[in-house]
Amino acid sequence: MNNIDWRLCFVADVEAARERDLRPIVAEALAGGITLLQLRAKKLDTRPFLDLALDLLPLVRSAGVPLIINDRVDIALASGADGVHLGRNDMPPAAARKLLGNNKIIGISANSAEEAAAAEAGGADYIGLSPIFGTPSKTDTDPPIGLSGIRRLTNAVTIPGIAIGGINRDNAADVFSAGAAGIAVISAIMGAEDVREAAAELRQIVESARAPFSL
Amino acid sequence: MNNIDWRLCFVADVEAARERDLRPIVAEALAGGITLLQLRAKKLDTRPFLDLALDLLPLVRSAGVPLIINDRVDIALASGADGVHLGRNDMPPAAARKLLGNNKIIGISANSAEEAAAAEAGGADYIGLSPIFGTPSKTDTDPPIGLSGIRRLTNAVTIPGIAIGGINRDNAADVFSAGAAGIAVISAIMGAEDVREAAAELRQIVESARAPFSL
Repeated sequence: MNNIDWRLCFVADVEAARERDLRPIVAEALAGGITLLQLRAKKLDTRPFLDLALDLLPLVRSAGVPLIINDRVDIALASGADGVHLGRNDMPPAAARKLLGNNKIIGISANSAEEAAAAEAGGADYIGLSPIFGTPSKTDTDPPIGLSGIRRLTNAVTIPGIAIGGINRDNAADVFSAGAAGIAVISAIMGAEDVREAAAELRQIVESARAPFSL
Repeated sequence: MNNIDWRLCFVADVEAARERDLRPIVAEALAGGITLLQLRAKKLDTRPFLDLALDLLPLVRSAGVPLIINDRVDIALASGADGVHLGRNDMPPAAARKLLGNNKIIGISANSAEEAAAAEAGGADYIGLSPIFGTPSKTDTDPPIGLSGIRRLTNAVTIPGIAIGGINRDNAADVFSAGAAGIAVISAIMGAEDVREAAAELRQIVESARAPFSL
């Protein structure tokens, strides 16, 4: 849990990938310099979800990048991933912590300062600040909190905040300036024609934007 | 794990219930005499699924009936349910056993003698013989194995076989005669006008059909 580089999280989303295989996409994103991987597969059956996590693990391990599983504590436990990211309709954080123990990462989405503070009090290791801007990737989200929301939410906690929602190379630097410890992207990497280049470009912005939160 | 009464399993399926609340349906089914409850919710978010399991637990506990969770080891662990039922697209049984330990029930669906034997070798506590007949409740299943299939599959294992798929009061006795240790139903209970009466009627058939497997 020490020395996690929260700066550039790629959310590899099976539904957003449609028919494309996530494995080569993740490999390219890792080569481009993502520092954190979140695997999301809201509609996938348990076995292919677990198989996918198990396939991605050697890739992230050799890159020294943690793997976070969206929602599914069972997949995280069975695959040996590094943690989970939990939204409002996922397992309550206290229940997840009980199952995962203290050595796994738990991230919790927050849309308000109250939710952020509650997440930290509930044992979260980071907050997912969500959503920052409007985004095509996720439709069922709360209203965008904007750059001012990043300030508000990060001021309410001492743990790192990873901003997600509509972040790209044009606004990434501003997101860091507003207080985010990291950015999480789906489309900005997955939707790029050259995934590795897109990740590398974001990594460069992230490098020059600010020093990492906990390094 | 000792003295489990496998004879009459009600599969409480959230999708099959459509908009109806499963809680009163399960309460009625328990009052009618089901001996095992399986909770299935393939499309429900984790939090409402867990909430539902936690709501059902006191009901089954006071009836002395075990609660099995379909597919989701995380829900089983977090709710304190008695085990899981795993299909082909769910977590591999060995991974589930590792997470659940030896005191929880693991049931595995089988459509052939080979699958049944593999399930027993893999540590299953019971086999789900599936499907026996055609059924409106589940569409993505293998071809029906019929009464001869029950004989074939149960002969391949020493653990109890619970038959599922199109079983009702008209064919339940035959299913036991063919070697099943129990029957599992969805529609025959959930689709009945009087859930308690339907469960009670099946229980009576089950009582007179044969002695329970492991009592």
